[in-house]
Amino acid sequence: MIIVLKPHPTPDVVQHVLERIEALGLTPHLSQGVSRTIVGVIGDEEKLQVEPLQAIPGVEQVVPILKPYKLASREFHREDTVITVKGVKIGGGHLAMIAGPCAIEGESLLMEIAGKVKEAGANILRGGAFKPRTSPYSFQGLGEEGLRILRAAGDTYGMPVITEVMDPRQVDLVERYTDIFQVGARNMQNFDLLKELGKTRTPVLLKRGMSATVKDLLMSAEYVLSQGNREVILCERGIRTFEDSTRNTMDLSSIPVAKGWSHLPIIADPSHATGKPDLIPAMARAAVAAGGDGVHVEVHSCPEKALSDGPQALLPEQYARLMEDLRQLAELMGKSIDVCEGESVSCARC
Amino acid sequence: MIIVLKPHPTPDVVQHVLERIEALGLTPHLSQGVSRTIVGVIGDEEKLQVEPLQAIPGVEQVVPILKPYKLASREFHREDTVITVKGVKIGGGHLAMIAGPCAIEGESLLMEIAGKVKEAGANILRGGAFKPRTSPYSFQGLGEEGLRILRAAGDTYGMPVITEVMDPRQVDLVERYTDIFQVGARNMQNFDLLKELGKTRTPVLLKRGMSATVKDLLMSAEYVLSQGNREVILCERGIRTFEDSTRNTMDLSSIPVAKGWSHLPIIADPSHATGKPDLIPAMARAAVAAGGDGVHVEVHSCPEKALSDGPQALLPEQYARLMEDLRQLAELMGKSIDVCEGESVSCARC
Amino acid sequence: MIIVLKPHPTPDVVQHVLERIEALGLTPHLSQGVSRTIVGVIGDEEKLQVEPLQAIPGVEQVVPILKPYKLASREFHREDTVITVKGVKIGGGHLAMIAGPCAIEGESLLMEIAGKVKEAGANILRGGAFKPRTSPYSFQGLGEEGLRILRAAGDTYGMPVITEVMDPRQVDLVERYTDIFQVGARNMQNFDLLKELGKTRTPVLLKRGMSATVKDLLMSAEYVLSQGNREVILCERGIRTFEDSTRNTMDLSSIPVAKGWSHLPIIADPSHATGKPDLIPAMARAAVAAGGDGVHVEVHSCPEKALSDGPQALLPEQYARLMEDLRQLAELMGKSIDVCEGESVSCARC
Amino acid sequence: MIIVLKPHPTPDVVQHVLERIEALGLTPHLSQGVSRTIVGVIGDEEKLQVEPLQAIPGVEQVVPILKPYKLASREFHREDTVITVKGVKIGGGHLAMIAGPCAIEGESLLMEIAGKVKEAGANILRGGAFKPRTSPYSFQGLGEEGLRILRAAGDTYGMPVITEVMDPRQVDLVERYTDIFQVGARNMQNFDLLKELGKTRTPVLLKRGMSATVKDLLMSAEYVLSQGNREVILCERGIRTFEDSTRNTMDLSSIPVAKGWSHLPIIADPSHATGKPDLIPAMARAAVAAGGDGVHVEVHSCPEKALSDGPQALLPEQYARLMEDLRQLAELMGKSIDVCEGESVSCARC
Repeated sequence: MIIVLKPHPTPDVVQHVLERIEALGLTPHLSQGVSRTIVGVIGDEEKLQVEPLQAIPGVEQVVPILKPYKLASREFHREDTVITVKGVKIGGGHLAMIAGPCAIEGESLLMEIAGKVKEAGANILRGGAFKPRTSPYSFQGLGEEGLRILRAAGDTYGMPVITEVMDPRQVDLVERYTDIFQVGARNMQNFDLLKELGKTRTPVLLKRGMSATVKDLLMSAEYVLSQGNREVILCERGIRTFEDSTRNTMDLSSIPVAKGWSHLPIIADPSHATGKPDLIPAMARAAVAAGGDGVHVEVHSCPEKALSDGPQALLPEQYARLMEDLRQLAELMGKSIDVCEGESVSCARC
Repeated sequence: MIIVLKPHPTPDVVQHVLERIEALGLTPHLSQGVSRTIVGVIGDEEKLQVEPLQAIPGVEQVVPILKPYKLASREFHREDTVITVKGVKIGGGHLAMIAGPCAIEGESLLMEIAGKVKEAGANILRGGAFKPRTSPYSFQGLGEEGLRILRAAGDTYGMPVITEVMDPRQVDLVERYTDIFQVGARNMQNFDLLKELGKTRTPVLLKRGMSATVKDLLMSAEYVLSQGNREVILCERGIRTFEDSTRNTMDLSSIPVAKGWSHLPIIADPSHATGKPDLIPAMARAAVAAGGDGVHVEVHSCPEKALSDGPQALLPEQYARLMEDLRQLAELMGKSIDVCEGESVSCARC
Repeated sequence: MIIVLKPHPTPDVVQHVLERIEALGLTPHLSQGVSRTIVGVIGDEEKLQVEPLQAIPGVEQVVPILKPYKLASREFHREDTVITVKGVKIGGGHLAMIAGPCAIEGESLLMEIAGKVKEAGANILRGGAFKPRTSPYSFQGLGEEGLRILRAAGDTYGMPVITEVMDPRQVDLVERYTDIFQVGARNMQNFDLLKELGKTRTPVLLKRGMSATVKDLLMSAEYVLSQGNREVILCERGIRTFEDSTRNTMDLSSIPVAKGWSHLPIIADPSHATGKPDLIPAMARAAVAAGGDGVHVEVHSCPEKALSDGPQALLPEQYARLMEDLRQLAELMGKSIDVCEGESVSCARC
Repeated sequence: MIIVLKPHPTPDVVQHVLERIEALGLTPHLSQGVSRTIVGVIGDEEKLQVEPLQAIPGVEQVVPILKPYKLASREFHREDTVITVKGVKIGGGHLAMIAGPCAIEGESLLMEIAGKVKEAGANILRGGAFKPRTSPYSFQGLGEEGLRILRAAGDTYGMPVITEVMDPRQVDLVERYTDIFQVGARNMQNFDLLKELGKTRTPVLLKRGMSATVKDLLMSAEYVLSQGNREVILCERGIRTFEDSTRNTMDLSSIPVAKGWSHLPIIADPSHATGKPDLIPAMARAAVAAGGDGVHVEVHSCPEKALSDGPQALLPEQYARLMEDLRQLAELMGKSIDVCEGESVSCARC
């Protein structure tokens, strides 16, 4: 940690800063330059909190040198984390292909979509039973009945399933049905929820908040990891910017940045990032080419009748074409897409 | 609602759109221009969901005309909402002056700060017992013991109190101690929490999320209002932008915008918005001059020893000087700052 | 300047960094901590360029300690710069009240508006003769004829005038007619234009770019100052964010930030920042309360017929009411609004 | 165009709006809904300016339906524009691989870099002679001597060359030496420069401004096109957001968005977007996978001695490895990378 003092500090100010650091059992290291006086701190930087130091009169700036997360850091854990869910690997060269409707609307519809995405090559089935909707008047999800349907569809097709959890009170219930918890962008800093999930041993897919930096995302992962659950999958789903041609701006550089800083797998969600089906295939390909560990795509067989986020869903046949491209791209990148077990069944269009 | 079709629609596409609208019991209104075909919808627009319409093939754009919130809207409720908490009015010309430390750290310290801010003219006492911290390794608050201390300080000085609630499971507990619930920026779209708070009859101060538009903020207020709790106070605390000289960018235009669209009071929090005590007085004055219904300021008697957010706190004497300015400004704006009852006591510096 | 090396640097890397610094005639200062090795640099930091150092293999981060601008810095020049234009002072407690139409559309109209804003208390007249329009098909301004009209109106009412210059080839021409050059947000980093203006001795009002930080704005001011022209007025006019209720987001904290870092005056332009007349009075008051050195407001007597930016203009009578408020606020802040000489004439409404 | 009136308009307001539209020779189309009155406009929408309509009292919102650009629009020109420069095609399935140093620093160094990027497969050589630097104290480029060196290197290796032009006064000079003009992000809305370039017949590579939407970028392209120069190449180089792990946020969704709206080719510049060589290969691959028409990469043989932007340059050997990947990816995407004529020469490392 480096503490920069304001110009022309009095000896008292310098003395006070040195005393505060020594009181914490650390060694200060004073450098007096032409224009500024700087105090470096040697020892266990973690003992120092940036905030109280910044509040000392005469301190201009405190520059932390170490990253504030530990368990999520690649310095702490050099190898890529590989997460295995019902035989499907995620990370370390294995791509997660998550697909399904935004919301679970009924059993026959989900079965139909599940069959089709399985056939196209998806290896994890998604579907929302608890929906975080901007409007209190929008469809809020089927709740436990939705979870039951999702589990049934996953079992039918031998696919692991993922679904969103929004409330710490739902963690036990949702865990009974799902293979992966999803934490939505709006809950990325719902710290009570993260702590509750950290106490389970079910993997957590953590979506980046719309105003979260990559560092913030890793700090939120740290909340889960620090409670003992080491299986976190990061997910880029777009950040909020002034550009209005897409729902959010997909920040694909977060993929190589996160992979440099952390050992956790990171996937991309072009459905929520763009909000436009026309753009999803291009951005899904780009995510894999950028080194992403998977792609999360919403698929619905009748988008215009979907109860939630219909306009951003691909049709099953569009998804099948995209998976063709992604398989070739994965091969070029030296990566594999695990196939999940269970048999595909054919089903009629809606 | 207006539905714009893509160029050169086939008669089938036009027919399909008209049928979907009529099926909802509404009257479509077709306009064929030189370059585009447009369908206006007459009737109760609320019945129409934007999303499914956008998913119809051949639809280029759906333009909602009405605002998606109702109870929060000034069209629904023309008069300013005035909220009264233990005799202190907020809104409709009455300014809330909320002050206190970021976190409650102990009884004697809070009593000292409470006494000083009361003397300076604050009319609501703040203090956090449950702290949403970016790092799991930072101080997380004193919990119920903190709530007890806050209540005691409020009672001693005759001040209503406000404290943050982060988890739907804490609502009952927190309500036993506080006069106003605070919902932090990170929880602005924690919809389960909002619904739980909507079921109480205790006022809710709702902070704007760092990536939330004013419309999003009003939609979140609508969650609380729609459950029956009509006492919501909005709070501008900065949005996330590329500017790095301040912690967030305080968007003061949100004050006149929100006052135009909604009847709810809106206050400003320059402490969190700027993160820098040097900037707080200027931005607090600006918030009142822009028409804000109050100012939320963190005050600590020893910022360099604060366990949370010390660097952004004002010293009690700085707060007293600021309140002098704000009182004059309030008078110029034709507004009043209610004085809360109870006697001020003198206390020693830390 | 502080150079942070990547973890576990080899002795060669450390040696190479030390050599590069010594080759520049500076003294490196090595600190080896538990987790990181840090090299502080003592001497004239200006000699060091951040960029080449960052490119050295083994360097993780280079942290500049000094601000990159000098002539614009308050460290260089402690007193507020006060600029005097035809007897009207700007800065150091004197507020510039700049008003007029977006574009100059004709002599009688400008005369009428000039008379009214002068009467309301404006002390500088604005009007655009060269207009930077997003669309090549929009009205581009009257050119030199517009400049002539502006000069005539200024002379008639004894008001100094300000107008935009967009192209280095226009500098001589515009200077013959104007008292202050205006550089628009889109040209804030048009460095050839800034250099050309730096060679003149006419004050320059420099608008903040829509994606410029306060530091970037001061760096652009430095371009003008470094050529010898020491009279630069900064102008906050909104930055681009995701919020869409206003045209841009007015970042009023830039006012106290800039005043802390620099001696240059800074004013605010709520017309361009908000794009909505309903919001202009609130934001103009907020700008003065935040410590701004003036307000720039567009005024037009028939906004619906204006050739440019009509919807954001105030009517003359709205401007007069606003000036009433601003005069009281200025007094409260201990500031004055200079009155310009020349006689007001009455004129008919359009 | 659709004009939405404020709630409960008086008959006078409605009448006034209808008259204004008819006065322009257009046909208004009145729809009176339950909550709002709407006026659609049929006829040549181009005749209507949004702005003056918005300024009419009683108008709540004006919704333009048509895009404001024409010549840049795919509605106007369905086929992809393909630009040919000295035998190298750009667009329509042909990828531009632009490489070279940020600034031209000397003849032998540029010759060396040119030889290496040519050998790696680059088909256009870049180098800056006029440099837009944030600081007036940074290296500003070699000027005409730099242009001469660039031309010589291009001729030696049979590569077309591209260089930046910043000032309308330089257009003639730069055109004598270059094959493609580059307009930097900071000049994207330097309209006088764009008009000057529109009068030439030399292709223009137009970089997206840091706060420009895709629509803004196309409006700036329209400035060039409307003067008669139909050869514009768009370039995504990152926008400004709150994320600070990269210099800018590369918005790759701009590629499929721009290709949907416009026939112009669009390439990506991961060097400026990320500012970090570690991230360039991932983002260059992602740009091609997203459908981009080429990649612009800065290459320098000694980044730590570069006079400008060294830290973001790839070494020639890193560039060669990247080109291997991009060739395979291009093949997978069904695209080709034209080879430019002329012989490669071997040269020593710096």
